[in-house]
Amino acid sequence: MSNTTRYSKNQLKRYPIYLNYLKSLNFSKDDYISTSQLSEALGFNNEVIKKDIALISSEKGLPKKGRNISRLILDLEKFLGTNAKNNAVIIGVGHLGRALLNFDGFKEIGLNILAGFDKDPQLYEIDINGKIIYSLNDLKNYVIANKVEIAIITVPTSSAQKVVDECYDAGIRAFWNFAPKTINYKEDVAVVNTNMASSFSVLLHEINLKKKI
Amino acid sequence: MSNTTRYSKNQLKRYPIYLNYLKSLNFSKDDYISTSQLSEALGFNNEVIKKDIALISSEKGLPKKGRNISRLILDLEKFLGTNAKNNAVIIGVGHLGRALLNFDGFKEIGLNILAGFDKDPQLYEIDINGKIIYSLNDLKNYVIANKVEIAIITVPTSSAQKVVDECYDAGIRAFWNFAPKTINYKEDVAVVNTNMASSFSVLLHEINLKKKI
Repeated sequence: MSNTTRYSKNQLKRYPIYLNYLKSLNFSKDDYISTSQLSEALGFNNEVIKKDIALISSEKGLPKKGRNISRLILDLEKFLGTNAKNNAVIIGVGHLGRALLNFDGFKEIGLNILAGFDKDPQLYEIDINGKIIYSLNDLKNYVIANKVEIAIITVPTSSAQKVVDECYDAGIRAFWNFAPKTINYKEDVAVVNTNMASSFSVLLHEINLKKKI
Repeated sequence: MSNTTRYSKNQLKRYPIYLNYLKSLNFSKDDYISTSQLSEALGFNNEVIKKDIALISSEKGLPKKGRNISRLILDLEKFLGTNAKNNAVIIGVGHLGRALLNFDGFKEIGLNILAGFDKDPQLYEIDINGKIIYSLNDLKNYVIANKVEIAIITVPTSSAQKVVDECYDAGIRAFWNFAPKTINYKEDVAVVNTNMASSFSVLLHEINLKKKI
């Protein structure tokens, strides 16, 4: 990844879409793909794709042929860090925490979920999809011993701030927050929010609008 | 919901956050909450909250006291449609489809997942968390018989367009798309996209930026 380039959120969100599409193709090592082919397949503007790809490619494309697919996949994986193992834990083993522990697709995007943490003693030492649930009291030791970089927050609103603070104390500086709460983070922290209820309310509103047309 | 008001996406995303927070409080039927209390608890600007709440409230707030909490919860539930049962099916029972079938939190936001659909015969009639998996060939009949309004798309990129077209043929006009694919939708369709891989790439990029500071 370039040291100086700042990528927009929308741009960053396109790269995994390119990668996912390319990996879904049947291709041999000498196959090429052009940005106009990508544009047709994915619906993004050709110029947008050209700019995105140029920023992360290790080689120039060939006139008319475009980019070597295998090479482009490697470049995208390198850029996205999906080859790296990013160790993560899930904090809060309720409905959503359980669902995410059962979701094996995280591995494909470079997210390595190691374990779950909860405050309910009834869950301790339980195995969910190969991941053990531990007490939040053990978080700090576990994070240090296992080089955990990312906490996925799936606790109820009321305890979100508390567990984020505990994770910070344990040395975690990256949060994927699924709790519906505006949390105060320290400045040296990376955060992304995903809120299922919020996404659904946008959909419901759109449904109602369409019905009125 | 007002017939004329158009709400911004960010605004729509705040309403479930208010609702979730209010429901997490211990309150009796005569308890009130002010927008400044909400502002302090949730981190949104007081004026923003005032405007949001005024748009959906059936009663004016009282000076200093604010809104009756029970009343406000009812107004929010009515606005968000979380009291309504919005029937949905999950299309594609891979890792993510399974995870979402196992996620019981959808009920709380008014999303009633009835069943899963897949093209793999090995999955047919399997029960996941009380929901049965059916063949995609049975989709149309099922949608009509069960008044399904929403399809949650969790198929691989390569088949996303095809299943969305099939859902449309079956009468579905609302899609929550988790597949990392830009899909072409008809004009009378409501859509919201949630892409786990894209969210994660935004987080990874932020992590790398913070490390360089």
